[in-house]
Amino acid sequence: MSQLQRLVIVESQVKGSIVALSSEQQHYLQRVLRLKNGDRFIALDGKGQTWAAILESDQATLIESIHASSELTVSVTLMLALPKTGFDDVVRQVTELGVSCIVPVISDRTLLNPSGNKLDRWRRIAQEAAEQSERQIVPTILEPLPFKTALDLQADSKYLCAERGSSQHLLNCELGKSVMIAIGCEGGWTAQEIELAIAKQYQPVTLGKRILRAVTAPVTALSLIAGMVESRAASED
Amino acid sequence: MSQLQRLVIVESQVKGSIVALSSEQQHYLQRVLRLKNGDRFIALDGKGQTWAAILESDQATLIESIHASSELTVSVTLMLALPKTGFDDVVRQVTELGVSCIVPVISDRTLLNPSGNKLDRWRRIAQEAAEQSERQIVPTILEPLPFKTALDLQADSKYLCAERGSSQHLLNCELGKSVMIAIGCEGGWTAQEIELAIAKQYQPVTLGKRILRAVTAPVTALSLIAGMVESRAASED
Repeated sequence: MSQLQRLVIVESQVKGSIVALSSEQQHYLQRVLRLKNGDRFIALDGKGQTWAAILESDQATLIESIHASSELTVSVTLMLALPKTGFDDVVRQVTELGVSCIVPVISDRTLLNPSGNKLDRWRRIAQEAAEQSERQIVPTILEPLPFKTALDLQADSKYLCAERGSSQHLLNCELGKSVMIAIGCEGGWTAQEIELAIAKQYQPVTLGKRILRAVTAPVTALSLIAGMVESRAASED
Repeated sequence: MSQLQRLVIVESQVKGSIVALSSEQQHYLQRVLRLKNGDRFIALDGKGQTWAAILESDQATLIESIHASSELTVSVTLMLALPKTGFDDVVRQVTELGVSCIVPVISDRTLLNPSGNKLDRWRRIAQEAAEQSERQIVPTILEPLPFKTALDLQADSKYLCAERGSSQHLLNCELGKSVMIAIGCEGGWTAQEIELAIAKQYQPVTLGKRILRAVTAPVTALSLIAGMVESRAASED
């Protein structure tokens, strides 16, 4: 199936096995991807359901449900203090790596106060990246929250990336069924933020001895978490 | 020392403990970083030696050698089929993550034939990224090689990232003292390239179930290798 193009649809478009395509979706399938009537593509509802579909002009027919999953068996939420630049790339890359939810936070060192347009843009990027990386789920991106508020979000395992130093390496940590990983922006977290997080059961972890930029650290963290989940599953097979 | 600014110098600039600064270096220290005479910075020779240094107008004095190392204890060479775009970002990010050497290769699916200017640019980026990530070593970037030639480079452990499928996960592999990791460009390696690599003792590995873009895969691979080296060292302490 990996050669087929992918399109995210929403539930309200589906009646039985027929999907009413929006004009943007028709344009994308027919003009951008150059599919013709009768050609197949993959339709995803962005919540884990996937179908093989056939294009028929302004609609498509869902012909069979597909069960192969490229999703992580652990739900991973990335809490990220908004960096000055590069957030688009972070959204794209962590989506490729399997993130479930992204929570942009305003930390003491955040300089940016993003507009609503940015949020729409990030959600579009997440959808594109989910399609391209052949995921079944489009990650949720929450509206930016103050760091203190975001600390109340629930997860089985909660980690905060601290700068180098003596913290445990993320690869040596245990992962529950839901994982929260919090990463600072340029300059990292303030001492007060680290204390607040520890009081909320966050464990400080390190990603290695070198200083990673704010746009590299989230990609590294997601690479490690996805690797831990998938390599363990493979070695248990 | 983490607050001090860093500058890469070359051996020929050093006489005893005095470094003759080039006019670009003077500009960088005095104008860009706004250091004044008498201010300290870190000088690196890019080959593993590091000193505390004091700025004195058009020269600097090396006052002491620094032994703290943020380098990986394993030498990692990234062999990367040149992607259509984004190689600058890859060089920057894998340098942050501790790569020792980058070998750009021309593969069957490479569309780009880079100019010599590009090589200079990549080397500048690697130097900047080594300084910013507080490394002692500036990674070597070789001139682009044909894939077949690059396969003859030596390493203890040689891995080739294959698309998903049934290969072993990189995190479940063993690392020797020198590691070579080969990553394809858009579209991955051809079947013939994979066969050639296997004949040269490369083991195909997977980075996970999702399709990673050519610019994300190297960052993921280096994150995993650095994590394997540093988490094992930490758990043996």
